[in-house]
Amino acid sequence: MNKVNIIWSHPRQNSLTYDVVNAISKMAAKQGKEVAITDLYRTGFSPVMTPVDEPDWSQPKIYSDEVNALASQLSDDDDLIFVFPVWWYSLPTMLKGYIERVWNNGIFYGENSRQPARKILWIALVGQTEQAFTKRYFDYVMSQTLNNGVSSFCGVKNSHVKFLYNTIGEDVADQECHYADLISQAVDTASQFLNDEQASSESM
Amino acid sequence: MNKVNIIWSHPRQNSLTYDVVNAISKMAAKQGKEVAITDLYRTGFSPVMTPVDEPDWSQPKIYSDEVNALASQLSDDDDLIFVFPVWWYSLPTMLKGYIERVWNNGIFYGENSRQPARKILWIALVGQTEQAFTKRYFDYVMSQTLNNGVSSFCGVKNSHVKFLYNTIGEDVADQECHYADLISQAVDTASQFLNDEQASSESM
Repeated sequence: MNKVNIIWSHPRQNSLTYDVVNAISKMAAKQGKEVAITDLYRTGFSPVMTPVDEPDWSQPKIYSDEVNALASQLSDDDDLIFVFPVWWYSLPTMLKGYIERVWNNGIFYGENSRQPARKILWIALVGQTEQAFTKRYFDYVMSQTLNNGVSSFCGVKNSHVKFLYNTIGEDVADQECHYADLISQAVDTASQFLNDEQASSESM
Repeated sequence: MNKVNIIWSHPRQNSLTYDVVNAISKMAAKQGKEVAITDLYRTGFSPVMTPVDEPDWSQPKIYSDEVNALASQLSDDDDLIFVFPVWWYSLPTMLKGYIERVWNNGIFYGENSRQPARKILWIALVGQTEQAFTKRYFDYVMSQTLNNGVSSFCGVKNSHVKFLYNTIGEDVADQECHYADLISQAVDTASQFLNDEQASSESM
C-alpha cells in the first residue's frame, strides 16, 4: 500500500490551512491509506539556505543531516500533498525554503537523484477572490512554476495545483458555510487525486 | 538628491551576486548618488513569518521592531534595486521572507500605506541559459509576479526585471569574460534605471 505524505506550512496551527490538512488526512485514513504529516513550522525547520546545503554544480555533495532526514521521508512510491497559503502570488517562505534546501541537486534532481513522489497535489489557499487572482494570470503563473518548474524538474509529471479562493472571506454572507465549502473542495480534489491510479502510472 | 537602496540576498558574500552589488554601488556612487546597501544574510534577518508579523485584515496592527526598522529604511523618494539568485524560478527564500514580513499590510500596501520606492529594479541571476529559461516562459512568469504582483501591488508602477543568464557558465569558453559581461550588463541596466527620470515621474 502506498503512503500519503502531507507537508504543510502556516505560522499558526489554528488556521484554515491546518483545517484543510486535518480534513484531508482524515479522508485518506478512512480510505485505508497510511498518512504522514510534516508540519514545517512546528518541527523547527529552518528554510534559510546556508553554504552547507547550497548545491554544488561541479561535484556530488553531502548535505546537512536535517536535509537528509527530510529527504528520506519521501519516496517515489508515495503520493505527496502540499497545503499552504499563497503569499505574494507564490509559495510562502517556509515552504519555498523547504524546496530549496531539501529538493536539492543529487537528491531529487540531477545525477543519481530519485523522484520525491509518485504524484503531487499542491493545495494553495488564496486570500483574494478567483476573479482578482486570475485576471492577472496568477493561476497560470503559479501552476507553471509549481507543475513545470518544480514537480516536472524533479521528474514528477503528474502534478496539479488546486486553488482555494477568497480565504479572507470578502463579501461572504455566511462565513461558516464559505469555509466549510473550501475545505470540502480540498477534500474532494485530494480524494480524486489519491484515487487517480491511471494518471499516476502514466508518470512512471 | 535621491538615495539608492540596494537590497541583496546570497548565502555567501563571496558570490557573483555580491560582485554585481559591488559594481552597481560603485557606479551609483560615481554618479554622485547616496547608496545604502542591505545585506539580508549578514544582518541576521529572519525571513520566517511569525504570528506577530502576520497581517491582520480586519484592523491596523503593530509589527515587530525588526520589521519597522527595515521598513523605515525605504522611502518613495528613493530608488530601489534588488539583487538575488533565482532559485526554482522565483525569489530565494531570504528575499521572499523579507517581502512577506516587511512589505506588510498598512506599511507598503493597504490603508495608510506608503510606497516603498520611487521605482524598482529587480536584478535576477539565473543559473540556466536564456534559452532553457524562456522556453517555458519563466521570464514572463517572474516578471509578472515581481512587477505586477509585488511592485504594482505596493503602488510602484515603474518596475523592471533584468535577468542575468547562465550564471553557472554552461558551455562558456572564457569564464572570466562571461562573468565580466554579466556584471557589465547589470551595471548598464542599473545606470539606465537610475537616470530614467522621465519614467519615474510617470509613476508618481
